[in-house]
Amino acid sequence: MRRKDKEIPNRPELESILARAQVCRLAMASEGAGGPAPYVVPVFSAFRGGRLYVHCAEEGRKLEVLARNPRVCVEVDECRGIRPADKPCAFTSMFRSVIGFGTVRRIDDPQAKREALDLLMAKYAGRATGPGFEFSDATLQHTVILEIRLEELTGKQSKNWEGEATT
Amino acid sequence: MRRKDKEIPNRPELESILARAQVCRLAMASEGAGGPAPYVVPVFSAFRGGRLYVHCAEEGRKLEVLARNPRVCVEVDECRGIRPADKPCAFTSMFRSVIGFGTVRRIDDPQAKREALDLLMAKYAGRATGPGFEFSDATLQHTVILEIRLEELTGKQSKNWEGEATT
Repeated sequence: MRRKDKEIPNRPELESILARAQVCRLAMASEGAGGPAPYVVPVFSAFRGGRLYVHCAEEGRKLEVLARNPRVCVEVDECRGIRPADKPCAFTSMFRSVIGFGTVRRIDDPQAKREALDLLMAKYAGRATGPGFEFSDATLQHTVILEIRLEELTGKQSKNWEGEATT
Repeated sequence: MRRKDKEIPNRPELESILARAQVCRLAMASEGAGGPAPYVVPVFSAFRGGRLYVHCAEEGRKLEVLARNPRVCVEVDECRGIRPADKPCAFTSMFRSVIGFGTVRRIDDPQAKREALDLLMAKYAGRATGPGFEFSDATLQHTVILEIRLEELTGKQSKNWEGEATT
């Protein structure tokens, strides 16, 4: 990272930002005719034990790209606004972001898939699955769960992050 | 796009979503030892005439990657919430996103740089530059402006996007 003064060095804090982000962006790369081709999509995700879980349909461009190259980069961010100033070059954003590098693998074990979906439900629905509120075997079978093992995690935040948001 | 029923086919609408997004994610790819390596960062951006403008410092990983491979993929999204349901598999998000593929080039002409910074200020500061509120030549010189020419733009939104947000 170029600006060490903006770095979030605390791994638990980085994981916490990643864990509660509503939307995560999943970047992939494939070999293209004119060199490596990047591809990025938004995903809903849940985090546990250093791993990010994402669910998706059984087919699509994302899975095709990942089948050929499981390396990914993920990003989440939080923006509290822009701080005005007297000079245009002094305007600053109240912003922080976390970026992670890792590798994707598909989860096939039904029990592990169910646990990942439970994590996603607990986060987004605010409700744990249980009797009368659970995934059917058919749904489970047709849902692809990706597990992203994060090998590197970095974050940075604007120096005024703790200040008061003004706009 | 796999789900044609979710596609936003209207180019002006895609451009409008891209233009007003507070944060845009810029994905890049570089040649790595184990295959193409993706990299994604959040950026502030302004849009005009089919091109996206981004400003950044004179050095950093982003510029290094882009110098070797100018192909990029950009992403913006809007999330209005999650719609609960009786069954966990019926929960849906009220979500839309736009993804663009393009090529980056650095803008070196001072007047073109000034115009791009003006676009960014008008969007984020809500105030146009002018006498007493303008970029100095020194600031201009030390600011890198990237222009992303978008060759392809696609978007999709959940079928309930127009409905009422519930959470």
